[in-house]
Amino acid sequence: MARIEYPAAVIRLIDEMKRLPGVGPRSAERIAIWLLQNPRAEPLALAASLQQAKEEITPCPQCGFFTSGGECAVCDDPAREPILCVVEQATDVLPLERSGAFKGRYHCLGGKLSPLDNVTPDDLRIGPLLRRISEGAGTEVILALGADVEGEATANYLASLLRGRCPVTRIAQGLPAGGGLEHADALTLARALEGRRDL
Amino acid sequence: MARIEYPAAVIRLIDEMKRLPGVGPRSAERIAIWLLQNPRAEPLALAASLQQAKEEITPCPQCGFFTSGGECAVCDDPAREPILCVVEQATDVLPLERSGAFKGRYHCLGGKLSPLDNVTPDDLRIGPLLRRISEGAGTEVILALGADVEGEATANYLASLLRGRCPVTRIAQGLPAGGGLEHADALTLARALEGRRDL
Repeated sequence: MARIEYPAAVIRLIDEMKRLPGVGPRSAERIAIWLLQNPRAEPLALAASLQQAKEEITPCPQCGFFTSGGECAVCDDPAREPILCVVEQATDVLPLERSGAFKGRYHCLGGKLSPLDNVTPDDLRIGPLLRRISEGAGTEVILALGADVEGEATANYLASLLRGRCPVTRIAQGLPAGGGLEHADALTLARALEGRRDL
Repeated sequence: MARIEYPAAVIRLIDEMKRLPGVGPRSAERIAIWLLQNPRAEPLALAASLQQAKEEITPCPQCGFFTSGGECAVCDDPAREPILCVVEQATDVLPLERSGAFKGRYHCLGGKLSPLDNVTPDDLRIGPLLRRISEGAGTEVILALGADVEGEATANYLASLLRGRCPVTRIAQGLPAGGGLEHADALTLARALEGRRDL
């Protein structure tokens, strides 16, 4: 008796699904079968959107955010203030935009310093950042990096590079909005105390 | 100042990802961005596997399992015993195959009776099942349907249809392997007691 498996094309689809972040073997099988069986599924529309996004989307040559050709919508916006906000990833741009609290432009580093992962300053878009600043892109640089060890190290490194060239600030660390003290860890509380402000 | 969003091609990809089962808005965004940014991602390979699977894979004309043309690998296997195992979905076939405890062929109904969801006998592949049995496909029919209300109703309906045509059995309900009594619900225990066997 032959050992039965899915046809090769189904196995290939499951394997590709398994590679996606957060999709385990069981979800991959469930998604693949759903795509093939559910009348509401449109696998060809998904395939077309993958191809279109892969072909069209490139990093903005200035800031590294997503664009479908030329400079991105932020760099291209003449109403932006001359302030540069340095973030780790292109995916950090939209959360800041949605906050409504920043009206300048961005600079995506493409990562953070991490000796353990072999990420050195040469791997980050630091040269382009210095070029933009020397070309007058910002009268202030805000470092909006993560509050983890690598974010700290990257912020300190950039601050030492930029000192004397333009004012450098870093976004505050403290209690998250809506968070009570009982849910905050000791380090968050220590930083919230350090960053206290006059009322 | 313009309101910034992802470029249209990225939004379209996120929207398509959101439609997949078990993928919420945040996972959809994470997967889409990963596909565009991660050097290990191969969005075009995923697109190609979707197209290939959609083009190649059809339900087996006999049993309803997946095939890439003609009868499926189970129906096509001459070493199978003349027993038919009736399951709800094509996805139920492989778990039974992997159990190694069944050496016959399958019949996928394509669902289960569910008046609340407007699923009537006409929506299930019951006619083809009766045809296969009258053509001598099986000397026994095993109903391997779920242990939920709709599975019960479907099993009872099929049993009444098949009575007199061939022997009909139903897979047992009881304690799952490795499960202790303390984790079993009352209905499972009641059915395990009803289904007790001589030792």
